[in-house]
Amino acid sequence: MSRSALRIAVVGATGAVGETLLALFSERQLAFDALSLVASARSAGRTIVARGETYQVEALERFDFSGIDLAFFSAGSAVSLQWARAAAKQGALVIDNTSAFRMDPRTPLVVPQVNGDLLRRRPEDGIVANPNCATIPVVRALAPLDRRYGVRKIVVSTYQAASGAGLTGMEELRSGARASLSEERVEPSSGRFKVPLAFNVVPSIDVMQGSGFTLEEQKIVQESRKILGRDDLLVSATAVRVPVFNGHSEAVYFECEAPLDRAEIVEILRGAPEIVVHDGEGAAGFPTPRFLPDPDRVHVGRIRVVPDNPHAGWLWLVTDNLRIGAALNALQIAEMAIAHDLL
Amino acid sequence: MSRSALRIAVVGATGAVGETLLALFSERQLAFDALSLVASARSAGRTIVARGETYQVEALERFDFSGIDLAFFSAGSAVSLQWARAAAKQGALVIDNTSAFRMDPRTPLVVPQVNGDLLRRRPEDGIVANPNCATIPVVRALAPLDRRYGVRKIVVSTYQAASGAGLTGMEELRSGARASLSEERVEPSSGRFKVPLAFNVVPSIDVMQGSGFTLEEQKIVQESRKILGRDDLLVSATAVRVPVFNGHSEAVYFECEAPLDRAEIVEILRGAPEIVVHDGEGAAGFPTPRFLPDPDRVHVGRIRVVPDNPHAGWLWLVTDNLRIGAALNALQIAEMAIAHDLL
Repeated sequence: MSRSALRIAVVGATGAVGETLLALFSERQLAFDALSLVASARSAGRTIVARGETYQVEALERFDFSGIDLAFFSAGSAVSLQWARAAAKQGALVIDNTSAFRMDPRTPLVVPQVNGDLLRRRPEDGIVANPNCATIPVVRALAPLDRRYGVRKIVVSTYQAASGAGLTGMEELRSGARASLSEERVEPSSGRFKVPLAFNVVPSIDVMQGSGFTLEEQKIVQESRKILGRDDLLVSATAVRVPVFNGHSEAVYFECEAPLDRAEIVEILRGAPEIVVHDGEGAAGFPTPRFLPDPDRVHVGRIRVVPDNPHAGWLWLVTDNLRIGAALNALQIAEMAIAHDLL
Repeated sequence: MSRSALRIAVVGATGAVGETLLALFSERQLAFDALSLVASARSAGRTIVARGETYQVEALERFDFSGIDLAFFSAGSAVSLQWARAAAKQGALVIDNTSAFRMDPRTPLVVPQVNGDLLRRRPEDGIVANPNCATIPVVRALAPLDRRYGVRKIVVSTYQAASGAGLTGMEELRSGARASLSEERVEPSSGRFKVPLAFNVVPSIDVMQGSGFTLEEQKIVQESRKILGRDDLLVSATAVRVPVFNGHSEAVYFECEAPLDRAEIVEILRGAPEIVVHDGEGAAGFPTPRFLPDPDRVHVGRIRVVPDNPHAGWLWLVTDNLRIGAALNALQIAEMAIAHDLL
């Protein structure tokens, strides 16, 4: 198929990730022939401008995927579980941004810079899964270190932004902060977070599991192992929402088979694809989510080797969760699938 | 000495910790005969109301400690290094809230609920050190677990509030958040934090060391070992400032010699002094710094055992850093010193 004949559908076009995906289509000049913007019946009929053209949002319930080559799904797991297989059966390659199929053994879970090789052939069920926003930076930074040192254990604490809960999450942080500063009465329990996020940190993202870990924490564990191809890897995480609008940060402690060398880690990460190392340079010397210079790169700072345990180290990762954590990774999957003629 | 004849000096009386200490004198009905409020020459002459009486702040440079039984120092390490030994030589028992003497082998570093036994005799140099605000919750929660399971490794990621940088830190967060919400121009680099804290997280607290760890991170490592009396303990930390006004949170991963039992950990911590366990009860089921019900307790939630490594677990700790992390611990040292007739 010629690249310009590409017919694309974006399911969840009115959400935070869908919006970012449309912006990236322009920025990265994805060539396509037809674009369908699809959302729930509630959003159907709205108009959205993408790449200078106006599109009318179509209702998913009535949408026909038979003419579609590539379908991005980012409207939640329930929507993907209900519609993605049907879309794939009608011939679309589905790039699914939810957790619906990530752990399905038939479904490749792809971070192009880490395991893009999986895109050399079309997946048997026509679905490629995009990992969780907190998993992608961890595997992007640790894959090259795993090759050199043999990572055996990862302990992650996250500092995740409101945008991970969508546009309404960002709005809730904004209005909550405003109310708090003007000492208005704030509702103690609100919509998108389990307790108000403004001037607070909330150590619970997604549904609590029987193990006492949340689904978000479980995703980081299971997905990291699957992407790195390391079932034996010890991974554990605490996932925390912080009052930042956009940009996830992660404090990543890791242990390796081989002893670590700080200067060498800096060098390895400087050579890794689309990673920016902050090693004391610049105003702050480390990345922070509010002042992220290039949102299409994984930013790594605070690179340390533990003085009394040279097999252990730390990284501080900051990424634009809507881009690298979701839309950009999905689009890079699409770009690689196109390059490999999978469509 | 009768308790009511106690003569107290508070050095740093105009700061966030000094203010909290004075509030606690009333709340806990500390009986004293005379109180001197001491601060830098810049603050001298100000009046402060404590326990219903008005006091004039005295200048440290001209203050005579010879009539003082108990002197609290919380005006920064430089001030303590310059004045605390002289105050102790003049006869005061100094309770120092800075890092000036914490790692001095002559100086007991005390968390009353953990190693209060050290207060059975007066320290040879007359100084008792109060640990760092991020260390205290870690040793409070892990000491009882160490006795049962033998802790061998601790990995801490902190979520520390603006109040750790004093009243000006809190004000900077407030004005920065206001400016950000009204889209005013915010200075990219400001006074109390290395980059603006509002709607951001800043992975750097206190001075960077040659090791690549910050002094704050190094304090957590060294002080935890000293308080728990465990030189062999592997401790490592990443210390991060978050846009919360008051209340430090910590994600604490730990590994033990013996396999862990979640229900037993809950039971042990419920029985530990002045700890509140949040185990799914209440509106949220876990503690958050903005909605901390009892600021004089260490709050523990998200108690987990790692499914594929039963020797490893997690705790989520939230504490009022001005109280438990500083003023309350100092006052509890004082109460214990008085009870043991050290003055």
